[in-house]
Amino acid sequence: MSAEIICVGTELLLGEILNSNAQFLAEELAQLGIPHYYQTTVGDNPQRIHQVIATAIQRSSILIFTGGLGPTPDDLTTEAIADFFETPLIERPEIIADITEKFTRINRPIAENNYKQALLPQGADILANPTGTAPGLIWQPRPGITLLTFPGVPSEMKRMWKDIAVPYLKSQGWGKERIYSQVLRFRGIGESSLAEKVAPLFELKNPTVAPYAALGEVRLRVSSKATSEAEALAAIEPVATQIREIAGLDYFGQDEETIASVVGKLLLEKGQTVSVAESCTGGGLGAMFTEIPGSSYYFYGGIIAYHNQVKIKLLGVNPEDIATFGAVSPEVAEQMALGVKQSLQTDWGLSITGIAGPEGGTESKPVGLVYLGIADPQENVESLKFQFGDTRGRSGIRYLSASNALDQLRRRLLKAI
Amino acid sequence: MSAEIICVGTELLLGEILNSNAQFLAEELAQLGIPHYYQTTVGDNPQRIHQVIATAIQRSSILIFTGGLGPTPDDLTTEAIADFFETPLIERPEIIADITEKFTRINRPIAENNYKQALLPQGADILANPTGTAPGLIWQPRPGITLLTFPGVPSEMKRMWKDIAVPYLKSQGWGKERIYSQVLRFRGIGESSLAEKVAPLFELKNPTVAPYAALGEVRLRVSSKATSEAEALAAIEPVATQIREIAGLDYFGQDEETIASVVGKLLLEKGQTVSVAESCTGGGLGAMFTEIPGSSYYFYGGIIAYHNQVKIKLLGVNPEDIATFGAVSPEVAEQMALGVKQSLQTDWGLSITGIAGPEGGTESKPVGLVYLGIADPQENVESLKFQFGDTRGRSGIRYLSASNALDQLRRRLLKAI
Repeated sequence: MSAEIICVGTELLLGEILNSNAQFLAEELAQLGIPHYYQTTVGDNPQRIHQVIATAIQRSSILIFTGGLGPTPDDLTTEAIADFFETPLIERPEIIADITEKFTRINRPIAENNYKQALLPQGADILANPTGTAPGLIWQPRPGITLLTFPGVPSEMKRMWKDIAVPYLKSQGWGKERIYSQVLRFRGIGESSLAEKVAPLFELKNPTVAPYAALGEVRLRVSSKATSEAEALAAIEPVATQIREIAGLDYFGQDEETIASVVGKLLLEKGQTVSVAESCTGGGLGAMFTEIPGSSYYFYGGIIAYHNQVKIKLLGVNPEDIATFGAVSPEVAEQMALGVKQSLQTDWGLSITGIAGPEGGTESKPVGLVYLGIADPQENVESLKFQFGDTRGRSGIRYLSASNALDQLRRRLLKAI
Repeated sequence: MSAEIICVGTELLLGEILNSNAQFLAEELAQLGIPHYYQTTVGDNPQRIHQVIATAIQRSSILIFTGGLGPTPDDLTTEAIADFFETPLIERPEIIADITEKFTRINRPIAENNYKQALLPQGADILANPTGTAPGLIWQPRPGITLLTFPGVPSEMKRMWKDIAVPYLKSQGWGKERIYSQVLRFRGIGESSLAEKVAPLFELKNPTVAPYAALGEVRLRVSSKATSEAEALAAIEPVATQIREIAGLDYFGQDEETIASVVGKLLLEKGQTVSVAESCTGGGLGAMFTEIPGSSYYFYGGIIAYHNQVKIKLLGVNPEDIATFGAVSPEVAEQMALGVKQSLQTDWGLSITGIAGPEGGTESKPVGLVYLGIADPQENVESLKFQFGDTRGRSGIRYLSASNALDQLRRRLLKAI
C-alpha cells in the first residue's frame, strides 16, 4: 500500500508555477505514515493522463490528483479518469445545488461550463470543496485502488485535504503513528547564531530539532514520531522549554502564532491600545495588526503619512525639523509616534519612516534605512534605527520595517510585565 | 522528440524541500522549444529509479535527471543509470584531478567517498560542475535516447544547465524556435464567463490561448512558438487585441502589471492624487498603493479608521449616521471617502468599510459585506456594495476589498479620459 501524487496542469510543464502542492501533500503523507515513492506531473491531455494512470496503478494503491477540475475545456482530469476506468460520468444534483448557492451568494451569473464540474464518475463519492466551486472525488474504481482528486488552487486543495481527506484516510487505518511537530519562532537573532546556541540539540533522535530561516525570523522544528499527541508532547516539551530558555526574548511564539498575534495577545492582557503612523510602509503595519481577528479591541487605527504635508498637518510634525533633519530621521519618527498616539488617544504610538527604494537613497541615507518611533503610555518617546540594506528589495524592506515595529512593541510589553 | 524531467531524492518525497528545480528546467525547456510532457519524482532507490527510466524511455527521448550525484551512500543516480543500461562505470582521471584541485583550494581533506563522483558510465561525456564537486553526464546509451544528469543543489544545477547543457542542446538543433507568451489580466469577470466570451479562441493553434484564475482576477496566456520575438508578436498581438476588445474595461493589464501599477500609471498621466480611508482593510489599500515605486507622486496617505471614534474625529463621519446605519453602511463609506479627500486635499478619496470576519457578521450584514466609497475630483461621492461571502476567509475578504477599490478607481479614471 503506497500513495502516488499526480499533478495535472500544462502550466506546471511550462514552468509557470511552482509545484507547492506536491510538497504539501508529500509532507502530509509523511505525517500520516503513508508510504509514497513516486510523484508525476502531466499536462492537460487525456491520452497522457491515461498513460500516467496506467503506470501508477501498477505500483501505487492510492492515487492523489491535483489540478484540472475547473470549468474550462482544458480541465480534463475527471473526464480522463472516468474514461480510463470506462465508467460513465453522472451529473450530481448536490454539486449543482452547491454551485448555484455559491454563485447566488456572490451575485454572479453561473456560466454554462460551470455545470461540467457537477459530473463525477458513477460510484465515486464527492470530495466537497468548501471554498471553491470545483469539488473532487474519492473513488475505488477497482479493488485495492483508491483515487482522490483535488483542484490545483493550493488554498482549496489544502482545506479539502485537511477537512475531508485526512479523516477519510484515518478511517482507513492510516495515521496511527505519525509525526508531531512544534515550530518555535524567533526574531532578532540570525539562523547561524541561534544554531550555535542550541547546537547539541541537533544531535537528538527523539525529538529531532531542525532549523529553518524565513525573512526576518528563524524557526526551529521540534518533531517526534508517536502514536498519540500526548506521547509526542512528552518528548517535545522538555526540549522546547530548554530552547525557549536559551533564546530568551528572541523567542516570540510557536506554530501558527505570528508577531502580530503575539503582540495583540499582550495588548489584550494589559488592556492597552495602539495606533500607527506610517510613511514608507504605507499602511502595511496597520494591515499586519488587523490581520488578527478581534484586533479592534486594541488597534484603534492610524495615519498613513506618505506625503510630508500629511505628517505636518495630521501628526503635528514640525516642518522645520523635516527641513533640517529630513523626513527619514529620528526626530521625525519620534514626532510621528507621539502625534498619532495623541491624536488617536491610545496608550502606544508606533511610527515608521524610511527609504524603501529602489530610488531615493543617498550616501548618508541609503535605501533600507528605516527609523521606528515608539511612544509609550507614560508619554516617553524613543526612536530606533534599522539598516536593512537594499538586497531584500522594496517589499522586503517594508515587511521588515513593519514586523520589527511589532517586535519592538512586543519586547517593551514583555519587559513592562 | 520530447524531454522528461526526473527528480531523484527522498527529501522530495518527504516534502522537506520544494521542487524548484523542476520549475526552472520546465521553463528553460519551454524557452528552448523542447516539448516536455512528463515530470517524475522518485526516491534514492535503485529499483524504483530503474522503473522510472523504463517508463520514461518509452515516451521521451531526452531524460533530464536532477539529484543523487553526491558522495554519500544514498546518492545513487549514476549507478542506477549505468546498471539499467548494463554499462560499466569507469573512473575518470579528469574528475579526480578536478575534485583534488577543489579540495586543495579550500584546504580540506578529500574523503574516500568523494572518489565515487569520478565514476561515470563507459561512453558518457562529463557534464562539468564549475561550482561543486559532483559532475553530471551527457550520454546516449541507445540511439534516440539522451540522458543529462545534474546535482540537486539548485545553484550548481542552474550554472551547469546554462553554461553547458543549453549550448549542447542548441548544437543538437534545439532553441531555434521557442515559446513567447503574453499574459492578459482581467478583473470583475469570472473565469467561466470570460472563457465563454472568448471560447472560439481556445481552438487556435498559433497563438494558443489558455485561461488561469487567481484570487480576484482571471488571466489568459497567449503563446506562440516562433524563431524570433517579432515573429511571435505578429501572431500574438492580433489575438491579444481581439481579447482586449471583447473584455472591455474588465481587461486591466498584462504580464508584470498589477492593479496598483495600472492605477498609478493612470493617476500620473492625469496628474491626479488620491488618499484612502480604511476600516476593515486596516491599511492594506495604502500598502497596495505604496508597493509601487514612485507612488509618492500620486498617493498622499490616508486614515486608518478602525475604531469608530477615528472615523468621527479624523474623517468627520456623523456619529448619528453610525448609530442609525452602522459603521458598515453606504452612508459611512461615502462620508469616509469625502472626509479623507478633504482632509488630505487630494483629487480622489477612496474608502473601505466592511465585515472581514470571522466574527461580527449578522443576518442583515454578513461576513464579507463591504462598502467602497469613492469621492471624485468634482466632489461627487458614491458607494458600491460588495458581498464577498465568507469562504475566502478574513485575508481573502481584505485582499478583495482593497484590490476592488483599486479596480473601481481604475474604471473611473479610464471612463473620464
